[in-house]
Amino acid sequence: MKLDICFSPDLLPRYELASKVVVVVDILRATSTIVTALAAGVAEVFPVATLAECAALGRERGCLTAAERDGLPAPGFDLGNSPFGFLDPARPVQGRRLAISTTNGTAALQQSLAAEAVVCGAFLNLAAVAGFLRQQGRDALVVCAGWKGQFCLEDSVFGGALAERLAPEFDVKSSDAALAARHLWQQARPDLAAYLLQSAHVRRLNSLEASQDFQFCLEIDKYAAVLPVWREGRLVSA
Amino acid sequence: MKLDICFSPDLLPRYELASKVVVVVDILRATSTIVTALAAGVAEVFPVATLAECAALGRERGCLTAAERDGLPAPGFDLGNSPFGFLDPARPVQGRRLAISTTNGTAALQQSLAAEAVVCGAFLNLAAVAGFLRQQGRDALVVCAGWKGQFCLEDSVFGGALAERLAPEFDVKSSDAALAARHLWQQARPDLAAYLLQSAHVRRLNSLEASQDFQFCLEIDKYAAVLPVWREGRLVSA
Repeated sequence: MKLDICFSPDLLPRYELASKVVVVVDILRATSTIVTALAAGVAEVFPVATLAECAALGRERGCLTAAERDGLPAPGFDLGNSPFGFLDPARPVQGRRLAISTTNGTAALQQSLAAEAVVCGAFLNLAAVAGFLRQQGRDALVVCAGWKGQFCLEDSVFGGALAERLAPEFDVKSSDAALAARHLWQQARPDLAAYLLQSAHVRRLNSLEASQDFQFCLEIDKYAAVLPVWREGRLVSA
Repeated sequence: MKLDICFSPDLLPRYELASKVVVVVDILRATSTIVTALAAGVAEVFPVATLAECAALGRERGCLTAAERDGLPAPGFDLGNSPFGFLDPARPVQGRRLAISTTNGTAALQQSLAAEAVVCGAFLNLAAVAGFLRQQGRDALVVCAGWKGQFCLEDSVFGGALAERLAPEFDVKSSDAALAARHLWQQARPDLAAYLLQSAHVRRLNSLEASQDFQFCLEIDKYAAVLPVWREGRLVSA
């Protein structure tokens, strides 16, 4: 089996998705938040492209709604894109359905649906993703949500961390993208937060909330058994 | 001034080109070969997308023709895509015009023409590129030709080498792509050839000719004063 990495959803037309497992990753913060939501007991997640669809799912199907644009909570929704929104004892989410719309992550997911299987990856559930890929025994493609279609450091470094975990079983050397991502991960690993703070767009998330989110999203294997998997139009825990 | 790197021509729609200087790079081998051709005395270079256009320029305008597809010389043309084709004393190229069609490099060039200025970069002329960018004093974008639209290691590492040279004068930290490319360059620098030979597509170029080309294309500043610049439909030496 081969592991490859696509650094931007805009490059997806260059990849054959059929028969592959796709791992969608948007570390800051869509996939980290979705993993956290399922870990907190959310029953199913509807990722949608537009704020209007998100609001409609809230109105018509009783979904909890979460929406973010350009890194900020969108007004008029229950939650923004912070994982901490799902960890507040004052607002239990157990058994709820969630509609979520984010800038980059949702789009990456929607564009990956031609694959045999689609899961969400984050540092929080790295072990779950690696275990699923080993068990599936198929070629895998990490799809980085990126930042407005451009390369972004944290998603790519996650791809490298996954390649490192899977190197014993997967071919992670026949793709230049996987090679490069693994090298970046090897540089980042000793101090992941400091490494990623070199990124200007990460530093831009410098509000107190965003800074807490950032630290949280870098915890490796906090939810090591939680795997959001795409089934019939929604994400559920595998 | 800011230096950014675009890892694939497919991502160009995400970048504003107007008012920028674009550096097109296809280390193996289009831009290395074009630099060598101009260094050897070729007067002007017409990069074309199709083999038919290349042949027509040979027939109708007396151009020397060079063409490659999937890493191999295309049949029926004077030359393939090897820089050594321009260094053969038995076939002097001084003053000739050249029509060249290559898989990835020509396409990257054609897609970059909305920029204020377009030049060709290679390890062979790194100093010339850096000097031109300093002198222009504009934002710059390195456009990696990549491999069929996908990320490729040697073009990206070149981008990192350029970022390293320009770090004193340019902002090379506000783009994640430039950060990552610079880190890759720092890893590659101690033994550039060994580093790039990790790449499966580089290893695939394992014929004797390709291996000689590979070593040649990694010579830094062999042609430190040669700068192919786009002027009125052709590349000329600046």
